[in-house]
Amino acid sequence: MTLYVNLAELLGTRIENGFYRPGDRLPSVRALSVEHGVSLSTVQQAYRVLEDNGLALPKPKSGYFVPASRAVPALPVIGRPAQRPVDISQWDQVLDLMRTKTIPGLVQLGRGMPDVTSPTLRPLMRAFGKIARDEGLSALYYDSIQGNQTLREQIARVLLDSGCNLTANDLLITAGCHEALSASVRAICEPGDIVAVDSPSFFGAMQTLKGLGMKALEIPTDPLTGISLEALELALEQWPIKVIQLTPSCNNPLGYVMPESRKRALLTLAQRFDVAIIEDDVYGDLAFSYPRPRTIKSFDEDGRVLLCSSFSKTLAPGLRVGWVAPGRYLERVLHMKYIGTGSTAPQPQLAVADFLANGHYEPHLRRMRTQYQRGRDQMIDWVMRYFPEGTRVSRPQGGFMLWIELAEDFDTLRLNRALLAQNVQIAVGSIFSASGKYRNCLRMNFAAKASPEVEAAVSKVGATIFRLIEEE
Amino acid sequence: MTLYVNLAELLGTRIENGFYRPGDRLPSVRALSVEHGVSLSTVQQAYRVLEDNGLALPKPKSGYFVPASRAVPALPVIGRPAQRPVDISQWDQVLDLMRTKTIPGLVQLGRGMPDVTSPTLRPLMRAFGKIARDEGLSALYYDSIQGNQTLREQIARVLLDSGCNLTANDLLITAGCHEALSASVRAICEPGDIVAVDSPSFFGAMQTLKGLGMKALEIPTDPLTGISLEALELALEQWPIKVIQLTPSCNNPLGYVMPESRKRALLTLAQRFDVAIIEDDVYGDLAFSYPRPRTIKSFDEDGRVLLCSSFSKTLAPGLRVGWVAPGRYLERVLHMKYIGTGSTAPQPQLAVADFLANGHYEPHLRRMRTQYQRGRDQMIDWVMRYFPEGTRVSRPQGGFMLWIELAEDFDTLRLNRALLAQNVQIAVGSIFSASGKYRNCLRMNFAAKASPEVEAAVSKVGATIFRLIEEE
Repeated sequence: MTLYVNLAELLGTRIENGFYRPGDRLPSVRALSVEHGVSLSTVQQAYRVLEDNGLALPKPKSGYFVPASRAVPALPVIGRPAQRPVDISQWDQVLDLMRTKTIPGLVQLGRGMPDVTSPTLRPLMRAFGKIARDEGLSALYYDSIQGNQTLREQIARVLLDSGCNLTANDLLITAGCHEALSASVRAICEPGDIVAVDSPSFFGAMQTLKGLGMKALEIPTDPLTGISLEALELALEQWPIKVIQLTPSCNNPLGYVMPESRKRALLTLAQRFDVAIIEDDVYGDLAFSYPRPRTIKSFDEDGRVLLCSSFSKTLAPGLRVGWVAPGRYLERVLHMKYIGTGSTAPQPQLAVADFLANGHYEPHLRRMRTQYQRGRDQMIDWVMRYFPEGTRVSRPQGGFMLWIELAEDFDTLRLNRALLAQNVQIAVGSIFSASGKYRNCLRMNFAAKASPEVEAAVSKVGATIFRLIEEE
Repeated sequence: MTLYVNLAELLGTRIENGFYRPGDRLPSVRALSVEHGVSLSTVQQAYRVLEDNGLALPKPKSGYFVPASRAVPALPVIGRPAQRPVDISQWDQVLDLMRTKTIPGLVQLGRGMPDVTSPTLRPLMRAFGKIARDEGLSALYYDSIQGNQTLREQIARVLLDSGCNLTANDLLITAGCHEALSASVRAICEPGDIVAVDSPSFFGAMQTLKGLGMKALEIPTDPLTGISLEALELALEQWPIKVIQLTPSCNNPLGYVMPESRKRALLTLAQRFDVAIIEDDVYGDLAFSYPRPRTIKSFDEDGRVLLCSSFSKTLAPGLRVGWVAPGRYLERVLHMKYIGTGSTAPQPQLAVADFLANGHYEPHLRRMRTQYQRGRDQMIDWVMRYFPEGTRVSRPQGGFMLWIELAEDFDTLRLNRALLAQNVQIAVGSIFSASGKYRNCLRMNFAAKASPEVEAAVSKVGATIFRLIEEE
């Protein structure tokens, strides 16, 4: 990483963590130059990055200041899901979301799409071209079930950043995180088994439970610190839970990063009740803080954590390259992967391996983290401007999803229908609950760079909410 | 198709079907020219193709003759599997086969790999290059769950050749035929359910049943006409069978094409007992006869047949592009596909769609059919030369797999171990049975063009068989 980016990240983290307070004067260019042993121009470059990110404000002849605090909307309330295992519903609504055609003019605020237009992704497309040209037909053979060795080595290297000390042999490549999650659940559970999930929770993982005939036990989840350990402990005492499935880092949809101490405590709880943990880390590398948060897996000593992830959010979903580090369940997950898809396509694996090996991943992540953090602030500002007063929003610490909670009796299904007619799509809250709760909530994507089109779409959402409230 | 290829296929089919007998003189060039209204040189070209295929023998000044009949080895005997549903075993042996690394010098006679070195595949690699260059990042978005529309339209067109009149909306793209089979089974069955299978049967499909906790009921299968309808009827009367799963066209591993009348009768049976049929057609387009055999699906009127296939055998397995036409089970299979992998990678779908739309599929198939048919004859000759007398072999009518049956007490697991030390790999017979039968059988791949290396490998297999028999 270049010096000025390093420095910008360090200062940015300090500002974000409140080390410098809103309105504070930041250290002078000269002082930082001395403190960090870098040139004056390096510090100036770092300040320019912070300025771009809205974290530092230059005042003529006075230096840089922390911008005055923004008005911050209230957080969503903690859900109180039914304290019993339920059969999962909402498939129709998920299908509606997934089936929406990409028609020209439709602004998709609903789906979990990263921005794939960044120039930092160009080396990936070049890698694809190179493979088509050089590897030719050899890229069209079957791969081994476990996946390309070079790619697994590269992933093991990247995983060091989340505190995981794994080797290529501990990893299994899958068709996206989706297959990683699906094979993991199938490796551990049988139909009828109970799975504890954070709530709200990623609808794809819940539909997997539904499709496999398992029951979900939704655990109340704090919008800042994640799944309630107290509620989880009670549930573990009360029900024969087989596995805890959650997204603790840059949660989807809430965006929180579960604090490290709570991750450790969760693992201890899993050990005490001898249950497995399926940890979805698909947004983890997109945490706004640096270094990225540690995974629960990084504390795991007896192989009970199945870490699932992919490049769908960090690079591009169309790659369908994911992985799982299944710990003690490796052989079983391997069988489940084999019976699901046989093997994973070699070509995208080779392309991603090339991208990682040539050092393109980290600069790309840095750029996207910056963009998404700015996107978050912009989206929150727009929501505050265009949505009714009293609207509650999450405070994402990574990723590119915002969770929005409207008045208790508001119905986002109706909102979604009204919006589709206006070429705007949102994700309705009910699909994030096993039992169709969160009907007054919605999820919006802030991955795209701010543009008049996106602002117009958000303002349409707001205007439609006002209209529907008046009609009631 | 060019005129001479057309004519060669017509004559070839007649010779193969015994319309002209071994030693017979074939019609003169002039006679054929008049009969088919083509030029003399077209007929001569057609005869050259037949000559290349070993189907016509020129005699100076006398014209063309059908070559004297080859000595033909005996067919495998019909298996007599246990007439009750069993839990499936053999995962370890399947894993061994799948895990074998492609090390330099290893001759893989065991795996289901087509020959992907044909120049007729070059347009596919060019399509990949073009997509990387032109489509760029748009190929990296999520696809719709159902898969690329253009590709589905192209597949619907190809399916016409097998008698299926389907539209793009009837099809669902999957990660290979493997996912098509897996999603189909999961759409219909629950753990504990009984699935009737042909025996011997594709091990991948059986491992899927195993992984999902279903039981397999193996039905005796004739090496020329396929699954025994009489035994199947008895089984349907006796057991609560949920679905019949089979590969009726260019069966893996036996290579037979089930006659059309028996396909119809099977469907009638399924209707009478109201069970679904999962039809694996992954080798169907590689039938040596022209036009290719009809699918059971093509006779299906009430949507009970789930037709599963892919381009893994016809183009290349590394594409991981398959499809399913699930009939009345479409919605359910869609759910199962979604929970398995979310969606299918768009890039290879675009490449295959381009390849099909530009008319490259049919010429490629023609070339591969000719090559594989020659490969079959060569492999049978080698087996007769190098294997013990009394060895029984299948008579494949398509695809590129030969099933070989040795003396009843011979153990191909031992053979496989001894061969791996000599850098040759075969597929052991036991993995083609739910209960580990066929231990005296093996499957060998004849996709590669005849070469001294392949002949040396086959002769090693023969020599090792002799050695193991002596050691006993």
